[in-house]
Amino acid sequence: MSGDALVFYSAVDDGQAWQAALNAELPELDVRIDPDVGDPADIRYALVWTPPAGFFARFPNLQLVVNLGAGVDSLMRREDLLPVKFARLNDPGMEAMMASYVIFAVTRYARDIPVFERAKRRGEWDYVHPRPLYEIKVGVLGLGELGAASAKALAGMGYTVSGWSRSPKDIAGVTAFTGREGLEHVLGESEIVVCLVPLTPETHHLLGAAELALMPRGAKLVNVSRGPLVDEVALVEALRSGHLAEATLDVFETEPLPKGHPLWTLDNVLITPHVASITVPALAARDVAESIRRVRQGLPPLHEVDPRRGY
Amino acid sequence: MSGDALVFYSAVDDGQAWQAALNAELPELDVRIDPDVGDPADIRYALVWTPPAGFFARFPNLQLVVNLGAGVDSLMRREDLLPVKFARLNDPGMEAMMASYVIFAVTRYARDIPVFERAKRRGEWDYVHPRPLYEIKVGVLGLGELGAASAKALAGMGYTVSGWSRSPKDIAGVTAFTGREGLEHVLGESEIVVCLVPLTPETHHLLGAAELALMPRGAKLVNVSRGPLVDEVALVEALRSGHLAEATLDVFETEPLPKGHPLWTLDNVLITPHVASITVPALAARDVAESIRRVRQGLPPLHEVDPRRGY
Repeated sequence: MSGDALVFYSAVDDGQAWQAALNAELPELDVRIDPDVGDPADIRYALVWTPPAGFFARFPNLQLVVNLGAGVDSLMRREDLLPVKFARLNDPGMEAMMASYVIFAVTRYARDIPVFERAKRRGEWDYVHPRPLYEIKVGVLGLGELGAASAKALAGMGYTVSGWSRSPKDIAGVTAFTGREGLEHVLGESEIVVCLVPLTPETHHLLGAAELALMPRGAKLVNVSRGPLVDEVALVEALRSGHLAEATLDVFETEPLPKGHPLWTLDNVLITPHVASITVPALAARDVAESIRRVRQGLPPLHEVDPRRGY
Repeated sequence: MSGDALVFYSAVDDGQAWQAALNAELPELDVRIDPDVGDPADIRYALVWTPPAGFFARFPNLQLVVNLGAGVDSLMRREDLLPVKFARLNDPGMEAMMASYVIFAVTRYARDIPVFERAKRRGEWDYVHPRPLYEIKVGVLGLGELGAASAKALAGMGYTVSGWSRSPKDIAGVTAFTGREGLEHVLGESEIVVCLVPLTPETHHLLGAAELALMPRGAKLVNVSRGPLVDEVALVEALRSGHLAEATLDVFETEPLPKGHPLWTLDNVLITPHVASITVPALAARDVAESIRRVRQGLPPLHEVDPRRGY
């Protein structure tokens, strides 16, 4: 009989920390960190972040794949996956992490920081009278767990927040819209737009030249979801023309963002290397352990992914 | 008999907006915007931000001076003030404004943004694995209304927050200290220190070379209170040597910060032109009106300043 082991793969996360956190929840679980996977037939569970092509093909008894993050688009596109259950991680630690990044990026614009950064480089005192936060309209696209948590945190700080999502949502302090008409309304009225939409075939290039043109002149864009949600060629053009005043980008159509890409050279773009939200082992291991317990009992995992919707 | 008028003076605030906001609360109040003060004998109340020397000497019937901000140090040093009642403004709008700036400045460091800003200038993808906010120790010096609101907001986001103030404070989620020993403890354990102490003769150069040396190597300083709380010569030296990794400064020993000052040239300093917190007329006018009503009845104003303490 084969074993009951979990394989861990991530180029950026700490395997030892995850092993310790998982064993604190499930002491009997045999956690194997790639490439030390032992007999592939023992592997029933996988906890992974963007493993290389062909990774899953060698595990005949795989039952559950948990994605080390909220966005599962990279798993949906794979061809080496057997019909197994999928889950994504979503712990309060991730929501707090994402909300902190969104709050930082939005508040940097709300408090005119790029103006002061430029004045600093000139060595000049350039006074701009601050505006109260309730005068600043922020639109959050995507109201899943991370989008809802971020929208709620912004509203709690005093911003005027609207949101857009596929299905109707009810979030305290957030005016929520749906449908194409709703998207155009939110884009048209928002001084700062935050993109937290899941990437699916339907949302690829959700923000193209036409949609960016709907945003008010001088608006700012924050993309913390996935690069391909935004047409990067159209974005560069909008940032060059000044129609968009600023952008904060944590995700890109190609990652790492290639050397020499025009985004590197634009003064009105802040670039971060896909760090907006990560899972914290100590906080997230409880969810992973519970999903393993449920799959052992023949139940669906927590935060199960629906391959038909793609998220 | 003389009138019952208020004189408004500020080089940076909108007099018309304050006039409208005050008259919405007190329709009968005669609000005069400097220099159109009419008969100086009519002036009983002054709502001012750093008026020029000699400003108050011409108002023989002045009873109440309300400072257009929380920090009253510039009023305390004046020699043209008759024995009148002093008040400072402190409305929820100011607390939200200050908290938003502090959250921005602290989160910029917590999320490694200066590292990414430098990588951007080199055109390089420089991955740094994020840390959860509870691992980041923030010390807030000064727990008055603005300090307490900021400390509470940081704790609410998940930071590990300690605070220091003259008198003992009890703030949810904040470990509070007092005394010289408490100051040294908070400086020694904090990765990020936020200065919100009121400026008095006792707190002048509160953070000198010795105190900055107590901060851990690589620590960051945020000063949003008053410039003279920090010895700027010692600060420049600590930022040059790398003992302090970064500073965000909204206030300076001389404002505007003079051209050619060494702080302009340091790459690890973010400079903003004294904008961290401002009063919003629509939100603050209620407090000012209530102070005027109270003084008319012979009662002390709201947020009265004690000239013996200097705040």
